[in-house]
Amino acid sequence: MRHMRLTTIHGTRDIRLEERPAPTLDEPTDAIVRVVASCICGSDLWPFRGENDITAGDPIGHEMVGVVEEVGSQVRSFKAGDFVIAPFCHCDNACPHCMAGMHSACENLGFTVGGQGEYAKVYQAEGSLVKTDGMPDADTIPSLLSLSDVMATGWHAAVAAGVRQGFTAVVVGDGAVGLCGVLAAAQIGAERVIAMSRHEPRQKIATEFGATEVVPERDEEGEQRILDLTGGVGADAVLECVGTDQSMSTAVKVARPGATVGFVGAPHGVELPVRRMFANNVGLAGGMAPVRAYLPDLLERTLAGTMNPGLVFDMTLPLDEVAEGYRAMDERRAIKVLLQP
Amino acid sequence: MRHMRLTTIHGTRDIRLEERPAPTLDEPTDAIVRVVASCICGSDLWPFRGENDITAGDPIGHEMVGVVEEVGSQVRSFKAGDFVIAPFCHCDNACPHCMAGMHSACENLGFTVGGQGEYAKVYQAEGSLVKTDGMPDADTIPSLLSLSDVMATGWHAAVAAGVRQGFTAVVVGDGAVGLCGVLAAAQIGAERVIAMSRHEPRQKIATEFGATEVVPERDEEGEQRILDLTGGVGADAVLECVGTDQSMSTAVKVARPGATVGFVGAPHGVELPVRRMFANNVGLAGGMAPVRAYLPDLLERTLAGTMNPGLVFDMTLPLDEVAEGYRAMDERRAIKVLLQP
Repeated sequence: MRHMRLTTIHGTRDIRLEERPAPTLDEPTDAIVRVVASCICGSDLWPFRGENDITAGDPIGHEMVGVVEEVGSQVRSFKAGDFVIAPFCHCDNACPHCMAGMHSACENLGFTVGGQGEYAKVYQAEGSLVKTDGMPDADTIPSLLSLSDVMATGWHAAVAAGVRQGFTAVVVGDGAVGLCGVLAAAQIGAERVIAMSRHEPRQKIATEFGATEVVPERDEEGEQRILDLTGGVGADAVLECVGTDQSMSTAVKVARPGATVGFVGAPHGVELPVRRMFANNVGLAGGMAPVRAYLPDLLERTLAGTMNPGLVFDMTLPLDEVAEGYRAMDERRAIKVLLQP
Repeated sequence: MRHMRLTTIHGTRDIRLEERPAPTLDEPTDAIVRVVASCICGSDLWPFRGENDITAGDPIGHEMVGVVEEVGSQVRSFKAGDFVIAPFCHCDNACPHCMAGMHSACENLGFTVGGQGEYAKVYQAEGSLVKTDGMPDADTIPSLLSLSDVMATGWHAAVAAGVRQGFTAVVVGDGAVGLCGVLAAAQIGAERVIAMSRHEPRQKIATEFGATEVVPERDEEGEQRILDLTGGVGADAVLECVGTDQSMSTAVKVARPGATVGFVGAPHGVELPVRRMFANNVGLAGGMAPVRAYLPDLLERTLAGTMNPGLVFDMTLPLDEVAEGYRAMDERRAIKVLLQP
């Protein structure tokens, strides 16, 4: 049996790299991918901080790109050696939910387990994976990696918020997802993208991604700034990219009547202000991103050089130093950490 | 000073018809309308049942059609003698919110006060009112009256829920708004409209309005029926037309992933199931209906005979018997009561 190094979590702030059996093909729809690059997700910080339940020894990590190692008998479009992007949520790309573009609700939904390791298993590989023509340049790998989750999630926030050409969009949250939300809103054609960010390095990336204005203030002060910037009207679309009650409250308050808040941060302690939403006709949409739905378009934009979402990675570490990667993100020393096995 | 009869509320279940001064023109944007027909709204039942705060003696009633009596100097499109439909929420039809179709958030928002009386004042008359060519037939009056609120509100539920051609729509609630929601979904082109209703007379109207199926079960049983009827997928759009936690819970549960719940019942005790909404990518949109936005279209459909929303009125009373009208609706002896001054 082949073994590999794999990131596991054993408790609050207890991340370990362990020797574990490499995954094997169990179903004819599976594929095994040798990880070329993976990363740490903002959502990995919830269990790291003890805010989600875990079982000691659980594998952690769900974002990765890599090279196909072997495929099951029903996987026909991919073969050993293909470079692939693996959506963190796997799908058959054929059920009624996938057909409606809601791949994250697939009837055969699965998740990348052990993305922060040397080998990962992709369920429903035929429906889930997207490949490139040949091996991509090393320079492109970070951007391709971002398509497995963070960029697609930012994109989903923009789509859910209903961003359209000419809109004024506000992005609440300057984590990697929020920054990708800025990029998505700009790519979709928002005329103004207002990033709420108080950290200089993040402000800089937001601006590179297309933010036309940056609002460093938070809460009431920040909300008032947005209203001032929009002539008292509010934003045409709001991307909520944090998932706390505070960020949701701000998102709802800065939305103009009739606008939608697109939310993609798994809600923690959020109580939706239903009466305010009703009074102001402010809608809410979003959830786990249907990554596969957006992948072909996002891949094309990335390979064409139209967008460079890989800029969200401001720290690269060897897999052996994964625990330091978690600490760096937890302490906000890094926006997002790329791991090299 | 001219006097008139006006409906007032003095406490829980205490509705009175009183002699009060008739309204007068105070602003150049006002109009005074002689009420030809008015009605009792489901939302009037909240204070009637003691669930909203009131001040004893408050006028009540906000839905009406009538004949213009006099207009202020800035009202140029209407003159004494015009038959008009008065949206319950008044608007200038010119501010940024109105221009975006969100007339219920108008910068000059006002409300019909004293609709259940002989004369009512309409603020922002130029922007709010819509008139007919000449006096309409008596037969058409109930349908025209419904456009002042209930039909426009049902329409808003369908629009907010994103109903489109070919959709399967579910309507939660068989009050007058829910029935109008059924009609709206059918008019907009839903292929299947599933009405959740357990009352035979309401089921009958729902069917006349275009419901293709009726589900009498509620809660878990009703939710399971909807899932069975949609092949386990859920509805493409859900209209929540009640405003309670129970109805909202059902609405969210029967929505397919990626669908939107359109809500138009002022929420009372609703705690939105944010984690379920996130997990299933079920959105929420709606609020107070921008009546004026829909009026021209709804008027055209009504006058063309394409729809007959006046069917929601199953009881007509002289204004003198308004208190009996409230009791009839409270006790569900009537779906909706039309009042004739």
